[in-house]
Amino acid sequence: MKILLIGASGTIGQAVARNLGARHQVITAGRSSGDHRVDLTQDASVAALLETVGRVDAIISTAGNLHFGPIGEMSAEQFNLGLQDKLLGQVRLALLGQRTLNDGGSITLTAGVLAIEPIRNGANATAVNAALEAFASAAAIELPRGIRINVISPTLLTESLDAYAPYFPGFETVSAERAALAYQRSVEGAQTGRTYRVM
Amino acid sequence: MKILLIGASGTIGQAVARNLGARHQVITAGRSSGDHRVDLTQDASVAALLETVGRVDAIISTAGNLHFGPIGEMSAEQFNLGLQDKLLGQVRLALLGQRTLNDGGSITLTAGVLAIEPIRNGANATAVNAALEAFASAAAIELPRGIRINVISPTLLTESLDAYAPYFPGFETVSAERAALAYQRSVEGAQTGRTYRVM
Ligand SMILES: NC(=O)c1ccc[n+]([C@@H]2O[C@H](COP(=O)([O-])OP(=O)(O)OC[C@H]3O[C@@H](n4cnc5c(N)ncnc54)[C@H](OP(=O)(O)O)[C@@H]3O)[C@@H](O)[C@H]2O)c1
Ligand SMILES: NC(=O)c1ccc[n+]([C@@H]2O[C@H](COP(=O)([O-])OP(=O)(O)OC[C@H]3O[C@@H](n4cnc5c(N)ncnc54)[C@H](OP(=O)(O)O)[C@@H]3O)[C@@H](O)[C@H]2O)c1
Repeated sequence: MKILLIGASGTIGQAVARNLGARHQVITAGRSSGDHRVDLTQDASVAALLETVGRVDAIISTAGNLHFGPIGEMSAEQFNLGLQDKLLGQVRLALLGQRTLNDGGSITLTAGVLAIEPIRNGANATAVNAALEAFASAAAIELPRGIRINVISPTLLTESLDAYAPYFPGFETVSAERAALAYQRSVEGAQTGRTYRVM
Repeated sequence: MKILLIGASGTIGQAVARNLGARHQVITAGRSSGDHRVDLTQDASVAALLETVGRVDAIISTAGNLHFGPIGEMSAEQFNLGLQDKLLGQVRLALLGQRTLNDGGSITLTAGVLAIEPIRNGANATAVNAALEAFASAAAIELPRGIRINVISPTLLTESLDAYAPYFPGFETVSAERAALAYQRSVEGAQTGRTYRVM
């Protein structure tokens, strides 16, 4: 398969590239890294990337930024950061990318455990991740030509524990390598509209 | 109780005003209707409303617009309509409103059945409604002073069947009066972080 992976330089993205790169052609992209430059928050940037890369069998995003902070101090503008970046950025990739996927191709987006396990400071993440899961469940019933869409929802990664441990008291972690298996399942499997939880 | 209701002129809002108005002081607001003018998509407008109304025991929204349309033709800009209006509009009301609620007060927002039952043309609604449910579940664990937050998720209303029947094949409907009971439960009850489904 020819696979386009946005966010390939990240903690999750590197593991996904390693897993899928063993059997497929993986084309990578990021804002400042990878084979191509792209910013998911910009229509024109995503359209240009898809145009350059041409038809593919799978599109994967392991990218997306959120706002973390206490609800008592959160502004609508801060909440909108996650809506515009991780949520709308990945939705934009799906909406534009459906047209450049081969028949039977797949879209795989990244959410996260906070969708179903709220933590302090995490209201934006919880809302955004749940919206991504729901978006995939709805888009799946409408996509044409056998195109599939799934979401991967990992819990905190072992590799990210140093950075985020205080926010996730008592959470077990998973390795990026294990999380990458869920992306393989989405791309090489046959299901659609699914959220694969890795926890 | 002193209750602020945004969207009181709507199909759901009228029924909520009738139910709660029988026992409480209900102050109503909308873009072009009610005791006060407010646009939930504007920070300054919401702040001005809250300032004018002063401390209340409950804030309710039965307002919020979405984009409906086929996934194959949807643009990111169209998807963003629901994010900015029904989702961020209601989140904004909660974020600003928490400060003007009395101790033990409540926030009640409106989602909808599409969160868990996708239909054609409904991807934006599914994502937005699921995000609202998730937001309430996360905000609930952080809100101070016993302030509660819940979401009401009605299925299609009997009163709205004429307008929307073709989009909801085979869906049973509920009366606005029954939906209003869930708002009563949220305001007069003691739970928080809940989604009350009316179906
Ligand atoms: N790490 C965890 O424990 C964990 C657990 C569950 C879910 N997640 C979610 O998984 C996703 C990736 O997490 P991560 O820890 O792997 O992140 P990361 O290490 O910060 O990597 C993010 C990747 O996405 C790219 N990127 C970021 N914003 C972009 C944009 N607007 N347009 C295009 N590319 C963009 C970055 O490349 P450039 O900097 O070059 O743009 C980088 O390749 C996030 O959405 C995160 O919420 C993470
Ligand atoms: N009707 C149903 O079958 C149904 C079922 C499930 C969920 N819902 C959801 O419930 C909510 C209300 O539905 P409805 O059918 O009752 O709607 P509706 O009859 O169109 O009423 C909407 C109300 O909200 C106000 N409003 C709209 N946008 C606003 C904004 N940006 N700022 C402030 N006020 C605003 C409107 O007043 P102005 O025009 O004066 O602003 C009106 O009072 C919607 O979010 C809808 O998705 C509806």
